[in-house]
Amino acid sequence: MSKAIMVIGTLDTKGDEVRYLKEQIEARGHETIVVDVGVLNETPFQADVARQEVAKAGGLSLPEILASSDRRVAVQTMMDGAIKIANELHQTGKLSGVVAVGGGTGTHICTGVMRTLPLGVPKLMVSTVASRDMSQEIGTKDITMMHSVIDMLGLNAVSKKILANAAGAIVGMVETDVGLTPTRPLVGLTVFGFCTEGAMHVKSLLEARGYEMVAFHANGTGGMAMEDLVDQGVLSGVLDFATHEFADQLYGGYCGGIGPGRLEAAGRRGIPQVVVPGGLDCIVLEFDSPETIPPQFRDRKIFWYDFRSGVRTSKEEMKTLAQTIAGKLNKARGPVKVVIPLRGWSEADGEGAPLHEPETNQVFIAELKRLLRPQIEVIEVDAHINEPEFAEAAVATLDEIMHR
Amino acid sequence: MSKAIMVIGTLDTKGDEVRYLKEQIEARGHETIVVDVGVLNETPFQADVARQEVAKAGGLSLPEILASSDRRVAVQTMMDGAIKIANELHQTGKLSGVVAVGGGTGTHICTGVMRTLPLGVPKLMVSTVASRDMSQEIGTKDITMMHSVIDMLGLNAVSKKILANAAGAIVGMVETDVGLTPTRPLVGLTVFGFCTEGAMHVKSLLEARGYEMVAFHANGTGGMAMEDLVDQGVLSGVLDFATHEFADQLYGGYCGGIGPGRLEAAGRRGIPQVVVPGGLDCIVLEFDSPETIPPQFRDRKIFWYDFRSGVRTSKEEMKTLAQTIAGKLNKARGPVKVVIPLRGWSEADGEGAPLHEPETNQVFIAELKRLLRPQIEVIEVDAHINEPEFAEAAVATLDEIMHR
Repeated sequence: MSKAIMVIGTLDTKGDEVRYLKEQIEARGHETIVVDVGVLNETPFQADVARQEVAKAGGLSLPEILASSDRRVAVQTMMDGAIKIANELHQTGKLSGVVAVGGGTGTHICTGVMRTLPLGVPKLMVSTVASRDMSQEIGTKDITMMHSVIDMLGLNAVSKKILANAAGAIVGMVETDVGLTPTRPLVGLTVFGFCTEGAMHVKSLLEARGYEMVAFHANGTGGMAMEDLVDQGVLSGVLDFATHEFADQLYGGYCGGIGPGRLEAAGRRGIPQVVVPGGLDCIVLEFDSPETIPPQFRDRKIFWYDFRSGVRTSKEEMKTLAQTIAGKLNKARGPVKVVIPLRGWSEADGEGAPLHEPETNQVFIAELKRLLRPQIEVIEVDAHINEPEFAEAAVATLDEIMHR
Repeated sequence: MSKAIMVIGTLDTKGDEVRYLKEQIEARGHETIVVDVGVLNETPFQADVARQEVAKAGGLSLPEILASSDRRVAVQTMMDGAIKIANELHQTGKLSGVVAVGGGTGTHICTGVMRTLPLGVPKLMVSTVASRDMSQEIGTKDITMMHSVIDMLGLNAVSKKILANAAGAIVGMVETDVGLTPTRPLVGLTVFGFCTEGAMHVKSLLEARGYEMVAFHANGTGGMAMEDLVDQGVLSGVLDFATHEFADQLYGGYCGGIGPGRLEAAGRRGIPQVVVPGGLDCIVLEFDSPETIPPQFRDRKIFWYDFRSGVRTSKEEMKTLAQTIAGKLNKARGPVKVVIPLRGWSEADGEGAPLHEPETNQVFIAELKRLLRPQIEVIEVDAHINEPEFAEAAVATLDEIMHR
């Protein structure tokens, strides 16, 4: 069955490439919707959605854009317009995938459009800058980046091969008959290296109870990706096992980089969530020797790992973290429980482990209990986070609130 | 027609995902060759190329790998083994594309394999870390990176959708009937922002003479990508219009990052090359105000651009650059000519432009002439690099040596 694929590009600078992509896709039996996000020079052919329409959808007329001396106005308006057009088409079932080709600016605009489409919708960016840091462009989304290797300045045997591969990839993706259709309730689980053993116990126990576990590496991007999938309605429940990102966020640690919306989507959508202080015992920073310990942490306990090491969180930080987490959970519209292991929160924090400080963890527990509204139960489990007993308690708690 | 697709992964940790990819690809009518690059735990199914074979191809037995306490031994050996296996299969026509799934280590191993396969061979990496900086993993290659969004810890509705899209993408790519088959001789052209106008003249003139131009953005990666495509035999000639990367390389500038092989592939393969000092008038660094000029450049002329600015190269640096370039060109086995514009080497360097210093450029010219072997002609053109007359001279020179 023929599908409709959106092809985005700045037709003034990438017109030949966009046309070639269009032709290749059509030759393989699918329809294309060409969207022009360029504003300057002439275009070699007529787009299905012309730049004037895109600009208008973005809130300005093309002359208004051209009158602005600020280049960012054009970039933002064309991105906003294309976002609106792509989402309208997708919501009315008229869009099966998106492919785009661009340099630095084109990649910025087109990935901005792709980031607004739900997970699973094929999104392919052919980019001259794919071999640079694309963390801002990809973010928490299932964007596929194809490095063009060469500069896209017209068609030649090399650019044709790259673009034909891209056309093949987007065609092959939209032809997939596998949908995003859970057969069992999906539970989001955050996972952090030092609590992996516990997370693996959780996985088995969740599956035994009829759930499917979707894991997110709690490294900044992962936690935010889980928030995204909650917002998209993909997940039915959350076991936020590794809230470690909040500790790293305090000092720009390795797993920091979360946005303000972390730990808020489940509450906002009212889906059940169980929260665990996995990894809040340590701040993970990039240093690997006594000489390279950041000065402000010289008096802390250290868990040496690889090129990264864990610094013990202080009592003061425990309070701050409890305040942050309580503030977010108190806003939740759905059921929430907090489950806390009393014998350690990661492999760095346990009997005999370098960051073991039960009295410091107690500061977090006390502060959290003090601040949480009374409807949010805090369950303390006399086990280590990586022990099966703890996983069982966490999973049983989630299972209970999911069946309410 | 059924094609063979290699599916790589560490079967101990990503076995379910690899099997699902395999099944999805086979369901769409293609064959798979599963290669196991894991070394530790049990695998859920038998790979076509087992870990023992991969290790052996990499130069060690599996027990030898496991006996090493250095994790890097396992990683490097399995990568080396998979590289050997993939290239043997490709060279005997038994491999149409490669797809892999992995976390941090898996991405490192599998992109290492992909980087050794020629441009055009479909290469798709499904990676949990695709939203981090992948510049080392992608490098100068046409690797396509698909962000898995979630952690790959077993199958669920989300990972199945991501992997089905990946299977679709690699299948769609290998089904492409467009090959890398030039109909006209391909000429590699390096392009740098401040010489773009000149490069556009070159493009028209090359095309008028029956060549196809393949452009490379001279930003470190681009120059090295051109060297790669020369080595792969894709390019028939080189017009190294923007050798600017060498100036930036002196001080870690914006377009630095070239490897030691820059400006050497054409000479090594003996294909015709014309070299132009485009952009050697300036070192481009990231600063945008008098306060942020790096101290050692405070007494230099500055070309203010955007968040980057150009610092005038000194007479001393001109000598160094001439020595570097002459050393490389003197080793060339094929025809080489140097064509130099006397009225400026970029838009920063011309009559009235901030970095205009003809006497400094003369130091480069004199030193280059002194060092080049006599067979390498230096042609001086009384024009600016961005003027049509200069482009005509450069293209005519290349055309002449390509017809010898």
